[in-house]
Amino acid sequence: MNEISPLSKSVSSCIQAFIDNKTKPVGSLGKIEVLAKQLALIQYQRQKRSDLSSTYLPKLSLAKPSVLIFAGDHGINEEQVSIAPSAVTKQMVQNFLQGGAAINCFCQVNCLDLTVIDCGIIEPIAQCDLSQSEAKVALIEQRVSAGTQNFSKQPAMSLKQVEQCLTYGKEIAQRQIEQGSELLLLGEMGIANTSSAAALMSALTGLTVSDCVGRGTGITDEQLAKKISLIEKAITRIDNERLQEQSAHAIYQIMSELGGFEIVQMVGAILTSASRNVAVVIDGFIVSVAALIAQKLDENVSEYLIFSHLSQEKAHRLLLDSLVGKSNNFALLDLGLRLGEGTGAVLCYPLLLAAVSFYNDMASFDSAGVTV
Amino acid sequence: MNEISPLSKSVSSCIQAFIDNKTKPVGSLGKIEVLAKQLALIQYQRQKRSDLSSTYLPKLSLAKPSVLIFAGDHGINEEQVSIAPSAVTKQMVQNFLQGGAAINCFCQVNCLDLTVIDCGIIEPIAQCDLSQSEAKVALIEQRVSAGTQNFSKQPAMSLKQVEQCLTYGKEIAQRQIEQGSELLLLGEMGIANTSSAAALMSALTGLTVSDCVGRGTGITDEQLAKKISLIEKAITRIDNERLQEQSAHAIYQIMSELGGFEIVQMVGAILTSASRNVAVVIDGFIVSVAALIAQKLDENVSEYLIFSHLSQEKAHRLLLDSLVGKSNNFALLDLGLRLGEGTGAVLCYPLLLAAVSFYNDMASFDSAGVTV
Repeated sequence: MNEISPLSKSVSSCIQAFIDNKTKPVGSLGKIEVLAKQLALIQYQRQKRSDLSSTYLPKLSLAKPSVLIFAGDHGINEEQVSIAPSAVTKQMVQNFLQGGAAINCFCQVNCLDLTVIDCGIIEPIAQCDLSQSEAKVALIEQRVSAGTQNFSKQPAMSLKQVEQCLTYGKEIAQRQIEQGSELLLLGEMGIANTSSAAALMSALTGLTVSDCVGRGTGITDEQLAKKISLIEKAITRIDNERLQEQSAHAIYQIMSELGGFEIVQMVGAILTSASRNVAVVIDGFIVSVAALIAQKLDENVSEYLIFSHLSQEKAHRLLLDSLVGKSNNFALLDLGLRLGEGTGAVLCYPLLLAAVSFYNDMASFDSAGVTV
Repeated sequence: MNEISPLSKSVSSCIQAFIDNKTKPVGSLGKIEVLAKQLALIQYQRQKRSDLSSTYLPKLSLAKPSVLIFAGDHGINEEQVSIAPSAVTKQMVQNFLQGGAAINCFCQVNCLDLTVIDCGIIEPIAQCDLSQSEAKVALIEQRVSAGTQNFSKQPAMSLKQVEQCLTYGKEIAQRQIEQGSELLLLGEMGIANTSSAAALMSALTGLTVSDCVGRGTGITDEQLAKKISLIEKAITRIDNERLQEQSAHAIYQIMSELGGFEIVQMVGAILTSASRNVAVVIDGFIVSVAALIAQKLDENVSEYLIFSHLSQEKAHRLLLDSLVGKSNNFALLDLGLRLGEGTGAVLCYPLLLAAVSFYNDMASFDSAGVTV
């Protein structure tokens, strides 16, 4: 992966002064102002501009935002850790392609195109499934295999597959950015992927599996207990020293043991987007775990992430705490969502548009003749 | 004011079943689902339909949403209870009319037209101030007087002026609805209007003035102490029995004592909108106080209100608790806003569009062939 440059803070005080001179009490737009400043720092970094000053700050833009939904299947689901059989991953992807899912509705009202990436669904999606669709949805095949292995019994994938996933994630992010995308919004679909995500979170943060596990889309007490014990068993396969050292090598091993083709592809996409100085909107629990892995591989990634919402999935709050620090829990929305599919990311997109519009178009005290 | 009918719950279970059969785990869209159900109940009530059933539920719509910003001045500001002089009310209204304020930016990205109502700014807005404007903003004059009286010394307005305000509020709401508006979004502008709002909240809820007062857009400790003592003094003018009885007569007296032309006009608009079965989006603290007054005058109004956000203004959480009950604090956004102008109402508008789109367009399990 390419290196991620930390955001230059040299224009930070100019940006803040520019925001503070808008016709409103200082700080009165709360998180919208913080968001505008983050986007400004990212975009000016990308433009490598040397002509910025308190008298000249160019407008922000969010051209061609890309909603990318990474889908994959999970061998662990043969243990019945989800409310649904694995076949539903494919059925829901077909639903996306036909325009019938929640994410389609939310993309449509926000004029956003949707790209679904098959990272390794058990059965591939036949092209003929698409013929009757009117929805503006693209399908991209980046299949690593027909679902991961059951990680309660063996590694979810090989190290080679980890590398393949990272490369695939890199390629799709690069392609979108080269086609002009100035914002990536990530979501996922994969029956049983909260099991993989919870396992990865526990292994990477040292939090107990119980702390990292939730009910996904709605499992019973019994299923929850089973989910916890299977994940605990899987983590014991990883050397304790490895868990502590958190080297890139250790993190690759953790990904291979606990898996998720769609999760690891998102890690690649997040790292690449940040290395190209493009902001990434993170959906809920699963995508946040991909963000955590990316952050462990390169801590500079954090400044490029926008956390769209606090999910209903129990562990998400703890996860955001370890991603952004307790004092700065910066999820934009808190709507009790627990669906995935990128729904939270797309629901927060209008707030980004508002932040950009306020930054670009709002009058200053001078220009408006307001005397406070 | 016309009577407000309680929402008929006869189709409530059909609506819930319709929502629960969408291709997603039950309840997984959290507040978006609750919002869709509320809008459905309101719209079906409006249509007075008798043909609704589990096999037939018509689509929802939010045609011609009206953003109404009520502006007025406050005599209390001669006591310097705000960061700004009263002249800023007019300057900010001119800023709205020229398209330079935060609310203009947010309306623009959401394709919403804006109407500003002069409810009694000290100096009227001359029509020539508008000539150079390119913004799609209408100004409506519903001036009751050149600002209220200083309510720390005398009633803010007469009972006749209270009635005039309610009538004006009714008329603007009626006009918008008759022109096809299926949603009202209310905001306000008025230097020192948090003083009036806090006084009204304390008088109507019995909470202490200290509990109801905040820093508005950013006053000092000294100003805050003064604001509290002036409000406490004003409330002593109202008979204790009056405060207890909460009759319409008592509430009219409270409005006349503690005032706010823009606040009382919003009360009229809220009651009228609910009586016409049209949902009203409530902005922050000031508009929520208008909603509280409306609720005291007719408790059925509550079902028609959508609380857009939890403001940074300290007392707003307590106010929402008394409006909707502690267990059901249903503000959609929590972005640390404390600006007013309807900014929170407009920022939450895309969530309403998402709720309507999900309700209208998302596939059912049957239609999508998903087998969960």
